[in-house]
Amino acid sequence: MYEKSISSAVIKRLPRYYRYLGDLLENEVVRISSKELSEKMQVTASQIRQDLNNFGGFGQQGYGYNVEYLYNEIGKILGLDKQYNVIVIGAGNLGQAIANYPDFEKRGFIIRKLFDVNPRLIGMSIRGVDICDIDELEEYVKHNKVHIAALTLPKNKAAQIASDLVSWGVKGIWNFAPIDLRLPKDVRVETVHLSDTLMRLSYSLKEMEE
Amino acid sequence: MYEKSISSAVIKRLPRYYRYLGDLLENEVVRISSKELSEKMQVTASQIRQDLNNFGGFGQQGYGYNVEYLYNEIGKILGLDKQYNVIVIGAGNLGQAIANYPDFEKRGFIIRKLFDVNPRLIGMSIRGVDICDIDELEEYVKHNKVHIAALTLPKNKAAQIASDLVSWGVKGIWNFAPIDLRLPKDVRVETVHLSDTLMRLSYSLKEMEE
Repeated sequence: MYEKSISSAVIKRLPRYYRYLGDLLENEVVRISSKELSEKMQVTASQIRQDLNNFGGFGQQGYGYNVEYLYNEIGKILGLDKQYNVIVIGAGNLGQAIANYPDFEKRGFIIRKLFDVNPRLIGMSIRGVDICDIDELEEYVKHNKVHIAALTLPKNKAAQIASDLVSWGVKGIWNFAPIDLRLPKDVRVETVHLSDTLMRLSYSLKEMEE
Repeated sequence: MYEKSISSAVIKRLPRYYRYLGDLLENEVVRISSKELSEKMQVTASQIRQDLNNFGGFGQQGYGYNVEYLYNEIGKILGLDKQYNVIVIGAGNLGQAIANYPDFEKRGFIIRKLFDVNPRLIGMSIRGVDICDIDELEEYVKHNKVHIAALTLPKNKAAQIASDLVSWGVKGIWNFAPIDLRLPKDVRVETVHLSDTLMRLSYSLKEMEE
């Protein structure tokens, strides 16, 4: 399979290709040359050709890329042709923001439930998705296939909940708590470190002033 | 100045050092060897020594690092010894989550105002921070020093608002819209691509299954 040899740098760039191609599709662009795509994305045309050659190359000489085809193929590579059952642990603002984001569902990430400890939130629903008592989490996960759990809870609780979820069979963790989770090797974790990005911003603002 | 020669890879790692040292401080750890820090952070001790040597090195042979001193010094390098006036454009769930996050203020990022178009939100306040009408944005930015604007609005609006903010003098943009902003070189941008991380997660889940 071609996937095995792809460097993680290329993988990191794929969602960006997917976004740009999605925008082109929305604007009803049918085909694009690597030169035009390169100008839009501000990477070199040769970088684009190299990256896409990893997957056999979808371009045709003199024609360029068929936008819809390339969009769908990259989608498949990213696993976006499948459906993922997602639960959100922590139904505060951030958890609700995730449940409210319409693009996730469009890409196959279906938010099934939110869980929280706060009795004022439990029983409410966000875009039709129920907020359940965290006490029901174990039973839910054991009886329903959960592909991804998003953790939007304080860091002192995130590690324990993550390891519970993993012991109940969850293999995908989308972590928003400011902590590096240590989980078994067969679990996939993506952490969004909000405050790290803010600190990088203050660093570069400070550097600019000096 | 030492800052000039620091690679961006080191800069990327600094917020992580800062987080770990902050946790140690909270747990009242006074000093730590590079070996212990290395085990906690799962990077090699030599990597840690190299990274910190970029800033003159704060360790002493046979003693290790003084946690509080190192924490404060890295904080200074990251510009966290200063205060930043932050405004949030878009007072939906994500904007409110940012306004509600107590750690930002602790690190000197003071949320001054939120702005939105939604009349149901305008006039409300989040932890004492007012949500204002977006029509007041221009006047506010022109009359108050704004270091950082967080953009938590749909992608079709983000580019225009960002370029307006920049024309009014804002130099730091913390972007949550799923778009790569093209702004003048003297503007610092950090983008948090939520959906890119989710797509990387689906990629690695898919890869694991094959």
